[in-house]
Amino acid sequence: MSRAASPAYPAAVPESGDDYRAAERLYARYRLDVPAPAAWNETLDVLLSHRSVRAYLPDRLPEGTLETLVAAAQSAASSSNLQAWSVVAVEDPARKARLAGFAGNQKHIVEAPLLLVWLVDLARLSRLAEERGAPSEALDYVESFLVGAVDAALAAQSAVVALESLGLGSVYIGAIRNKPAQVAAELGLPPHVFALFGLVVGRPDPARPTAVKPRLPQDAVLFRERYEWTETQRRAVTGYDERIRGFQREEGLAEQSWTVQAGNRVRDAKSLNGRDVLRAILHELGFELK
Amino acid sequence: MSRAASPAYPAAVPESGDDYRAAERLYARYRLDVPAPAAWNETLDVLLSHRSVRAYLPDRLPEGTLETLVAAAQSAASSSNLQAWSVVAVEDPARKARLAGFAGNQKHIVEAPLLLVWLVDLARLSRLAEERGAPSEALDYVESFLVGAVDAALAAQSAVVALESLGLGSVYIGAIRNKPAQVAAELGLPPHVFALFGLVVGRPDPARPTAVKPRLPQDAVLFRERYEWTETQRRAVTGYDERIRGFQREEGLAEQSWTVQAGNRVRDAKSLNGRDVLRAILHELGFELK
Repeated sequence: MSRAASPAYPAAVPESGDDYRAAERLYARYRLDVPAPAAWNETLDVLLSHRSVRAYLPDRLPEGTLETLVAAAQSAASSSNLQAWSVVAVEDPARKARLAGFAGNQKHIVEAPLLLVWLVDLARLSRLAEERGAPSEALDYVESFLVGAVDAALAAQSAVVALESLGLGSVYIGAIRNKPAQVAAELGLPPHVFALFGLVVGRPDPARPTAVKPRLPQDAVLFRERYEWTETQRRAVTGYDERIRGFQREEGLAEQSWTVQAGNRVRDAKSLNGRDVLRAILHELGFELK
Repeated sequence: MSRAASPAYPAAVPESGDDYRAAERLYARYRLDVPAPAAWNETLDVLLSHRSVRAYLPDRLPEGTLETLVAAAQSAASSSNLQAWSVVAVEDPARKARLAGFAGNQKHIVEAPLLLVWLVDLARLSRLAEERGAPSEALDYVESFLVGAVDAALAAQSAVVALESLGLGSVYIGAIRNKPAQVAAELGLPPHVFALFGLVVGRPDPARPTAVKPRLPQDAVLFRERYEWTETQRRAVTGYDERIRGFQREEGLAEQSWTVQAGNRVRDAKSLNGRDVLRAILHELGFELK
């Protein structure tokens, strides 16, 4: 069975319509039979179908696509309407190649037509305060950095949903944080601006389709009233470890339980691919993080 | 003209269909005539229609809604699939009231049926490593906290899009960070778990409708190839200051330019409503932020 056609159907589902699509999407996400949702629609279908795409056609995006994605991004909530983020759209192949070099040489950064670099941007607020002769001391605190990071993430995620609704694909590039000073220099970032993550955008290559990655069961992430880690949560992780191996087999990947994979990522400072010095570099970029 | 019916139409738009809706949504978002997008669909319509709702009916959500929102949230990307977030669903009126007390006494927290508290959760990863007798030193770094915060924000934003597609409304509660230790105690959070923000969810009260808030023009937040703050960006902010006053007049709010409003929020440590001590409290909660 081809990967494109096989996001692993549940045993018994309705043969067509919204109920069918909902059951199919939920099964692909959890590899578990979960109760059918009370309602379904196009937007839920887009959301549940998300996958990170790492194989693109080189086609340029249709005229106006970038502006539509930014309008979706700006429509996301912003803390106190501070709008403490910006985005740089990089299309120049040479610049994309240099940025890929700073971000673990991920080939899809070069391959896809567009790299969006999402920025925590406290410089706009700082500059406007300065023009008014007003202080902006609050920007020096961890809280303000966090506001910018959350604002940028909400914005980017709305852009991702928008682009997926248009049949495009994307993948977040956390590795843009491997070399923050170099990335800042390449993009001409002023002090108080930090490249939080990249987002590669393009048309997925239909010859190299991507499967939906199963996630932890809801029992492991959703708590009612209070956070309590019990045997139920532990069993949810154990079952997931088995299902992620099944997914890896289907994808022709080396088998490794999620617990071990995730454990390797959080083991020690070296697991952070250079990002163990992030705090010091943020200081250099003007974020005091008081 | 009633507020519900009047998200300020542009001067000349097609009379019906997708082009009409797109023009209407974009005009409400920017209060500017912007070029029509190349494509439009239901999902873009949901995204562009976002507004933060602060007036709710007390109705309980339909059965299964929470699980659908969490499935959407888990479908968002996660850095290295670490899934470094969790969410607590609070429906108990007494607990919601106590949490509202810690979060600036916002009445909609009490009024709406559901408060979701989104958590940076490094405890799951730390516990699993401990069970294997493996170290998890990387979790002590700023980078890991940031991964959890971004993961949680992406997840929450997908839940917001999902709930809006179902006709529900929400508002983010950053004020949950005003009293992080009290919130942690109320929710039984273990070390290495932090309540990043709340999200009030419910059915918007049609008698108290909410307008779409205009945002900065794209010129102020979208850069091409490199970040350059020029006269174009400065003018974009000046024009926005005028339009936000127009919006305030329509809404019966006191008029104040965005530059002054935002300036007041970033003035000094006191503007942070207690969140100037966040770094120290994060240390107490087990986040070393190396």
